[in-house]
Amino acid sequence: MYFITYLQEGTERIGLFTENRNKVIALEEILGEDIPKNMVDFISYCNEDVIEKIKKGWRTRGDQKEVFIDVQDVKICAPIPYPRRNVICLGLNYKDHADELKDTMAAKVPKVPVYFGKMASYIIGPKDEVNSHPGVTEAIDYEVELAVIIGKEGSNIPAENAEEYIFGYSILNDLSARDLQQKHTQWIKGKSLDTFTAMGPCILHKSLVPFPVELDLSCKVNGEIRQNSNTRNLIFDLPYIISDLSRGMTLKPGDIIATGTPSGVGMAFQPPKFMKPGDVVTCNIEKIGELTNIIK
Amino acid sequence: MYFITYLQEGTERIGLFTENRNKVIALEEILGEDIPKNMVDFISYCNEDVIEKIKKGWRTRGDQKEVFIDVQDVKICAPIPYPRRNVICLGLNYKDHADELKDTMAAKVPKVPVYFGKMASYIIGPKDEVNSHPGVTEAIDYEVELAVIIGKEGSNIPAENAEEYIFGYSILNDLSARDLQQKHTQWIKGKSLDTFTAMGPCILHKSLVPFPVELDLSCKVNGEIRQNSNTRNLIFDLPYIISDLSRGMTLKPGDIIATGTPSGVGMAFQPPKFMKPGDVVTCNIEKIGELTNIIK
Repeated sequence: MYFITYLQEGTERIGLFTENRNKVIALEEILGEDIPKNMVDFISYCNEDVIEKIKKGWRTRGDQKEVFIDVQDVKICAPIPYPRRNVICLGLNYKDHADELKDTMAAKVPKVPVYFGKMASYIIGPKDEVNSHPGVTEAIDYEVELAVIIGKEGSNIPAENAEEYIFGYSILNDLSARDLQQKHTQWIKGKSLDTFTAMGPCILHKSLVPFPVELDLSCKVNGEIRQNSNTRNLIFDLPYIISDLSRGMTLKPGDIIATGTPSGVGMAFQPPKFMKPGDVVTCNIEKIGELTNIIK
Repeated sequence: MYFITYLQEGTERIGLFTENRNKVIALEEILGEDIPKNMVDFISYCNEDVIEKIKKGWRTRGDQKEVFIDVQDVKICAPIPYPRRNVICLGLNYKDHADELKDTMAAKVPKVPVYFGKMASYIIGPKDEVNSHPGVTEAIDYEVELAVIIGKEGSNIPAENAEEYIFGYSILNDLSARDLQQKHTQWIKGKSLDTFTAMGPCILHKSLVPFPVELDLSCKVNGEIRQNSNTRNLIFDLPYIISDLSRGMTLKPGDIIATGTPSGVGMAFQPPKFMKPGDVVTCNIEKIGELTNIIK
């Protein structure tokens, strides 16, 4: 199941991709009209029974070609375009990335997770433009990350139960204004410029990914591979993150946790390779798909 | 105008305090039933015409004693119990506070604002209990802060227009788990434990406060004065903060900006004076009122 949010004739809908990603179907076509109308509310509503209904309904609807719409006829949005809370991110969570920032950011391989937030603003989707904010930043950087979408409210979650609290996975490009990030010492401002969170194209339901999650992820700028790793290289893995984050702090359905980025960010090159207007950045994660954005 | 959120027989309502704070009146009684039902939506809806209607309606209603309810008969909540986005906070924004943390946190008087976020969770109100999170933190600290509530969407706001984007002011106790704040280097986790944001008792409308805002603020623990200053001592003042924060990052109605705390926090004492179960913490800001919470 590849959960998506899309615009059809100006109306936002939630639905599913077909496996080859060239058709979409509205969740209402499968589950009826009484379901929540946006992804965060749907995630709160969704339980194992709903997943079973989708699986069954999908088989039935497969014969009814008219309920599937060509992907070209809709606009694919971020699966959660309007997050309810700030996106929770991990910094320096791949060893090779912490190492590459030793000189520029005095980074060290962390002994405890480094958490920070991106303001809850509109999240851009596939093919959307990133505002280059002339006059505000001159150091726009990319970061491909596996995003974990929380499916169930919980606090003090034991690591061994972490998967139970996950709804699924997406690709997140944690765009950063490196000059602001460094200048303000705490990172929120440099991470929260308008359009600086990109996510998509879908949320891959957890039932389609073996746990622990070991997925290849990569990032290209104008066709040149910059980042290339696998989520098995995370310093703090998903069970640890969910358990540690939720100690004393309730996680909620629809929360987005961006799990960190591997080496190869623009800032780590000598001289730095920051993005400029016209650049095309494509993030890939195995099984989830591809997320391309253009710097305006 | 002292805007409040309160519970009356289990129903959340928005309303106003009378000037002596011993009565409340529902905003519906003044403006009719078609107004938004929660404070964030109301702030988006509220413009100068609505403020004028409230002023006029208040005078009329003043004769109808039955629409005013005794404050003892309701539960006063945080004026914004469910923020839409994370609370934006400033760190080290009073010189005496930056100085007092020189040794424990290697703090310096900042040359640019230090921004960080608190997760958008339920904000506790007056007389509510703070969870002491045994086993998660052993270093709970208080911070009295003037909270600015944004009234109008805007980005790249010139400093000279900042007041236009303000709805009003409240008291915020930016509770912190100092051990987690320091351990994780970025501050969000140590600032975001459940119940670690307290706000209230009301939002004082900006029309009742001369600009620039110069208000005495103080904090007592078990009756002992710990913090005592005036918002004129902010390093970065409100016009600067609103202008700088909004560069490239849209501020929205209902956003809460906690402007920083003066010296006297528990961590700065030798030995530190962290809070323990049973402690009572009271934050005061001139004209806004008093916010008391109890450590559970």
